[in-house]
Amino acid sequence: MSAAFDRIRIVLVATSHPGNIGAAARAMLTMGLTRLVLVQPKRFPDPEATAMASGATAVLDAARIVGSLDEALAGCVLTVGLSARPREFAGRVLPARAAAAAALGNAAHGDVGIVFGGEMSGLSNDELARCALVATIPANAAYASLNLAAAVQVLAYELRVAATGDAVWRAPRFAPAAHDEVEALFAHGERTLTAMRFLNPERPKRLLPRLRRLFARAGLEKEEVNILRGILARVDELIVRGPRR
Amino acid sequence: MSAAFDRIRIVLVATSHPGNIGAAARAMLTMGLTRLVLVQPKRFPDPEATAMASGATAVLDAARIVGSLDEALAGCVLTVGLSARPREFAGRVLPARAAAAAALGNAAHGDVGIVFGGEMSGLSNDELARCALVATIPANAAYASLNLAAAVQVLAYELRVAATGDAVWRAPRFAPAAHDEVEALFAHGERTLTAMRFLNPERPKRLLPRLRRLFARAGLEKEEVNILRGILARVDELIVRGPRR
Repeated sequence: MSAAFDRIRIVLVATSHPGNIGAAARAMLTMGLTRLVLVQPKRFPDPEATAMASGATAVLDAARIVGSLDEALAGCVLTVGLSARPREFAGRVLPARAAAAAALGNAAHGDVGIVFGGEMSGLSNDELARCALVATIPANAAYASLNLAAAVQVLAYELRVAATGDAVWRAPRFAPAAHDEVEALFAHGERTLTAMRFLNPERPKRLLPRLRRLFARAGLEKEEVNILRGILARVDELIVRGPRR
Repeated sequence: MSAAFDRIRIVLVATSHPGNIGAAARAMLTMGLTRLVLVQPKRFPDPEATAMASGATAVLDAARIVGSLDEALAGCVLTVGLSARPREFAGRVLPARAAAAAALGNAAHGDVGIVFGGEMSGLSNDELARCALVATIPANAAYASLNLAAAVQVLAYELRVAATGDAVWRAPRFAPAAHDEVEALFAHGERTLTAMRFLNPERPKRLLPRLRRLFARAGLEKEEVNILRGILARVDELIVRGPRR
């Protein structure tokens, strides 16, 4: 994946607020992207960019600053322009997810440029026409105004999921209980609930099946079975001896 | 969808920077979410929050401020806590995409709370233990530090895609060319290329199949066929009459 990710350039055109450049750099790095190209940024470098980049200043330090979109995209085998607004003359338009998959597929062949316009009105029609593919992020039609760095975050996230799947950390699994341990628990529970006169064996209704269903859904661990049997054993004592203060 | 979306609460716990609350409100509204609950925000309301909310100040204005996480989650039939860091005692951990699907499914039955911790260290173990489900956003293990509003944006985006699919705007389709119009174009092209002596009919190589493949991929429109035949006709004239200055 990292080889393909190294071929992806995030290109920001005519960004007005340096804070957004910093936030975009942070968004990139959280997803493992590092190649940032800035086309005629209004103010850069700038302390606001550095502040918003948080731990991702290395991405800013390595950013290329160029004078034109064509310069930013030279050598790219696929160019993707973002647009929230519908454009009459756009060619292929893909949602972010499919665009990320296309970008990743093409990154096997060479560099891929993903282009974001300025904060006020995005990419111009001319700029978008220089991109082979238009990508758009599904959004609320009544308020589709994603912040620039937020749009970079969504695209970068989709690239990461496309590249590595969405495997995430898991809580450690503790030893699961064995079938016979679980059955012994249910048998114990049935005895105790009967002794408590909560369960009437002659009219058991759906009590035991419902408890089985609950614990089946949870998937019991060995230690949990021990805890539950400990609770049952304590109830057994109370029934036989009465409460000890 | 909007009924389910109205049942989703975005809960921000102990947010330090009011700008992040505003940016989160904006991220929510771009995806159609409007219910924001703030648990003990450090500073709110605040001009920075309003500035960062951009056009989404209505979400801020309607935000509920509460004193505890339990208060924020009262009545929720599913509670989802976000955590980037692995936790030893977490129960079910799902990636953002699957968590969004689960949230949406449960929103059919009642309110769903999606909980984000503070900027510095996220949710505490105690807070996370009060959530039925842990969600995590796939990220660069070496730098998984998504900005708070960026994390809200990704979750809100996944909720929207889960709810409405990722259908996006399409460029208007113009009238496609009919089979016979396309075949007439290829026939014309073959004649002209032969007349130009670019194509040798006795050794045609792969020229025509490659051109067919290119135009098949593009999917020709009626007007494009007319333009291409106009160009061919002009070349035909040049061949017959020579260039006119």
